[in-house]
Amino acid sequence: MTTLAPGAADAFRTILGPERVLDAATERIIYARDGSIADGVCGLALLCETTDEVSRCMAAAHRMGVPVVPRGSGTGLCGGAVPLDGAVVLSVARMRRILEIDRDVPCAWVEPGVLNLDLTAAVAHLGLHYAPDPSSQAACSIGGNVATNAGGPHCLASGVTVQHVLGVELVLPDGEVLTIGGPAPDPPGCDLRGFIVGGEGTLGVVTKACVRLTRNPPAVRTMLFDFTTTHAAGACVVDIIGRGVIPAAMELMDSRMIDACEGFTGAGLPVDAAAVLLVEVDGTEADVAAQTDVAVAVARESGTRCVRIAQDEAERALLWKARKSAFGAVARVAPNYYLHDCVVPRTRLVEILDAIGEIARRHDLLVMNVFHAGDGNLHPLIAFDRRDAAQVDRVMAAGKDIVEACVAVGGVLTGEHGIGLEKRDYMPLTFGAVDLDAQACARAAFDPEGRMNPRKVLPMTARCGEAVLGPDSLPPGTWI
Amino acid sequence: MTTLAPGAADAFRTILGPERVLDAATERIIYARDGSIADGVCGLALLCETTDEVSRCMAAAHRMGVPVVPRGSGTGLCGGAVPLDGAVVLSVARMRRILEIDRDVPCAWVEPGVLNLDLTAAVAHLGLHYAPDPSSQAACSIGGNVATNAGGPHCLASGVTVQHVLGVELVLPDGEVLTIGGPAPDPPGCDLRGFIVGGEGTLGVVTKACVRLTRNPPAVRTMLFDFTTTHAAGACVVDIIGRGVIPAAMELMDSRMIDACEGFTGAGLPVDAAAVLLVEVDGTEADVAAQTDVAVAVARESGTRCVRIAQDEAERALLWKARKSAFGAVARVAPNYYLHDCVVPRTRLVEILDAIGEIARRHDLLVMNVFHAGDGNLHPLIAFDRRDAAQVDRVMAAGKDIVEACVAVGGVLTGEHGIGLEKRDYMPLTFGAVDLDAQACARAAFDPEGRMNPRKVLPMTARCGEAVLGPDSLPPGTWI
Repeated sequence: MTTLAPGAADAFRTILGPERVLDAATERIIYARDGSIADGVCGLALLCETTDEVSRCMAAAHRMGVPVVPRGSGTGLCGGAVPLDGAVVLSVARMRRILEIDRDVPCAWVEPGVLNLDLTAAVAHLGLHYAPDPSSQAACSIGGNVATNAGGPHCLASGVTVQHVLGVELVLPDGEVLTIGGPAPDPPGCDLRGFIVGGEGTLGVVTKACVRLTRNPPAVRTMLFDFTTTHAAGACVVDIIGRGVIPAAMELMDSRMIDACEGFTGAGLPVDAAAVLLVEVDGTEADVAAQTDVAVAVARESGTRCVRIAQDEAERALLWKARKSAFGAVARVAPNYYLHDCVVPRTRLVEILDAIGEIARRHDLLVMNVFHAGDGNLHPLIAFDRRDAAQVDRVMAAGKDIVEACVAVGGVLTGEHGIGLEKRDYMPLTFGAVDLDAQACARAAFDPEGRMNPRKVLPMTARCGEAVLGPDSLPPGTWI
Repeated sequence: MTTLAPGAADAFRTILGPERVLDAATERIIYARDGSIADGVCGLALLCETTDEVSRCMAAAHRMGVPVVPRGSGTGLCGGAVPLDGAVVLSVARMRRILEIDRDVPCAWVEPGVLNLDLTAAVAHLGLHYAPDPSSQAACSIGGNVATNAGGPHCLASGVTVQHVLGVELVLPDGEVLTIGGPAPDPPGCDLRGFIVGGEGTLGVVTKACVRLTRNPPAVRTMLFDFTTTHAAGACVVDIIGRGVIPAAMELMDSRMIDACEGFTGAGLPVDAAAVLLVEVDGTEADVAAQTDVAVAVARESGTRCVRIAQDEAERALLWKARKSAFGAVARVAPNYYLHDCVVPRTRLVEILDAIGEIARRHDLLVMNVFHAGDGNLHPLIAFDRRDAAQVDRVMAAGKDIVEACVAVGGVLTGEHGIGLEKRDYMPLTFGAVDLDAQACARAAFDPEGRMNPRKVLPMTARCGEAVLGPDSLPPGTWI
């Protein structure tokens, strides 16, 4: 257990003033959690408003040897922003200015606390948007998106966050301020963008990001196909892409999720279907027409019962509302949910959905599926009640079985939520010791003292030379 | 000056046999050069054929403290594969097997010596190709493409090498074998792909790469627009993209380059034009038609004298041959050429072309332009005669002026050729000391002894803690 250095709060108050260093018990409870089911212990929370403040706070933490956990909106699902052992939480949520918009590249420099959807709203009048669209986009921050390399339904064709971050300003653990990348297509020097994006707060604090903006497509078409088996829906996903059409988005919901979402939004989803596919194509009007023809033809060959094409923007928005409110809709079913966002090869979708169903039955749990089918990014959501300790044990055991089943068919641990605390001890399933040590060394190059978001992402066995990443391992499955 | 450890050649011969360790004077001269104008000093050349051999050679070099320069086809233009001070050159040119093709992702695992165009040829029957297409694609290797993060005309829409490398196998400086990434869209853990791709041989030796394959577009249209001023051509580039059309490729050639290429290929280029734009769009037939309409309309508004649309695949191939043989065609003008591949914001193209013309006049040199106009990636090619020492001095001085002019309008040092030896001492033009030190630390995480391609990429002033990257700086401009 880390104990904060004596006088730590005072040192930070000298920088931020008394109001923005939080140490009351209630406040520390708030900052000890994120969107996951993990609980941590927060020593202090710092509400920074400028790069200079972040830099000075980091320099102070460096002097005092204090561990720091960067935090955006705190909506993450893998425990990445949960402080352990009384670490200091450094929140960038108040850094929410859009600093510069360049219509020509097009790109924008933004502060990390800017909410994902706010950025899109701010550039809408220019015919632009920010492409990565996590379902939590009304609440999650660009900084958090950068930390987790967030995805979203429209990342199938457009790529995940790392494909949209052109540069970052990063405050290093000792307070130095670094700029990496920029708007150039292939900037010289080490390209550390892919390393920083998805760094989950282990390398420093991102205080600015230069993000690519995307022109709104001239035409969009949104389709809903319904199926009497999930097999047919999964096969349809594979075949649409096999015909050379990469839809802007292709989302699959199974019958239980259809029920929950329909009850929540009244979007007219077919509640008697075993599965629906929400497919969106975009481009020029001509291209949209051509892609729609292919998608509809494949869906009919795959046995869709009916093809619904959104007739106007309102209907399109309603269908997307049904999809994006899925996690919220689960509240109608059970008080808590837990999910893994493993990715499997698209061609193994049908078989992994069967395996997940079997795992749920074996552990007597309710699993609902809603996921980014086009890129094989699963979200098998286990609805449960946290107050039932025995059920929680079964949930954790089922989660482990799901992860292992995904890896067994050539999948990986996470598509967009991150590793954080949740999947840290699963890392050896997909990485060997040499791989993990190399990751530890790359991390140690930025954070030689291991003070940035300690005990996250890499298992405790990974090391760089003699440096150890932290104290003993938590056993897998006990992260809550 | 490094001296090879006594017995070094014997140690490598134990691993590779006598035939594949080259130390004859002629052989060492061959491996002391690459496609640039730099000369180095090669201690030994090793011709490896398997990952295991690379691993054992690297372990031996580690034991003996020998510096190593990895080499693919040796076609690079920035001196990245030129050994300094008698370093050992480790060639992977014989590792040219295509190990596995996955039609579903689609992707392929290949060895680093596979030639770029050979990969495309090997998957053509599947309707696939490897998208990044350097003009040297008939000769350059995938390993070299990975090392330099190579681009090519068709990287405008499809992205450069880093967007097409899903994973690599990397032999570390001590001989350990590491796997980074893989076919999953967003693999967990540190994403070191962007760091390794473009690493220019400073981090280890890439012994396998998993590269994305791209479906051949159902339709392609290739257009040639000619202009009476380069201003008009530059403005056309900006306006086509400003209308929301991202062509698959958009290349600009100025009058001198048109002359040279036409003389070389007889493609029917308009030799009286001040500039031509070669624009290619692809996609579905409908989309191609729509994009062509926009491009042609913009070209007419920009004052093109005539619009030529390739009528068949043979005509298209001829136009591309004219473009891709440009560097070779310069041999008709002068025995040597030198160029910088700086990138400027697309909106500054017209002004930078003027500045480059003025620099050439000032130094009494002939500059010919042929470049990836869509992404602002310049290739101002200075034709000269190396035997004229005074002219070489003027070439170097003009090169420096060009780089500085590009940076002054918000550009960067290189778009695709790399930093290597050539631009090492220009790095402080775009990076501060903190930035460079962070890059040095990331590099030291993989190569703590600084034995991998030493004295390349980072200026000698960059350091990680107490570690210094190498001996004193070469003064800028004296790299040849």
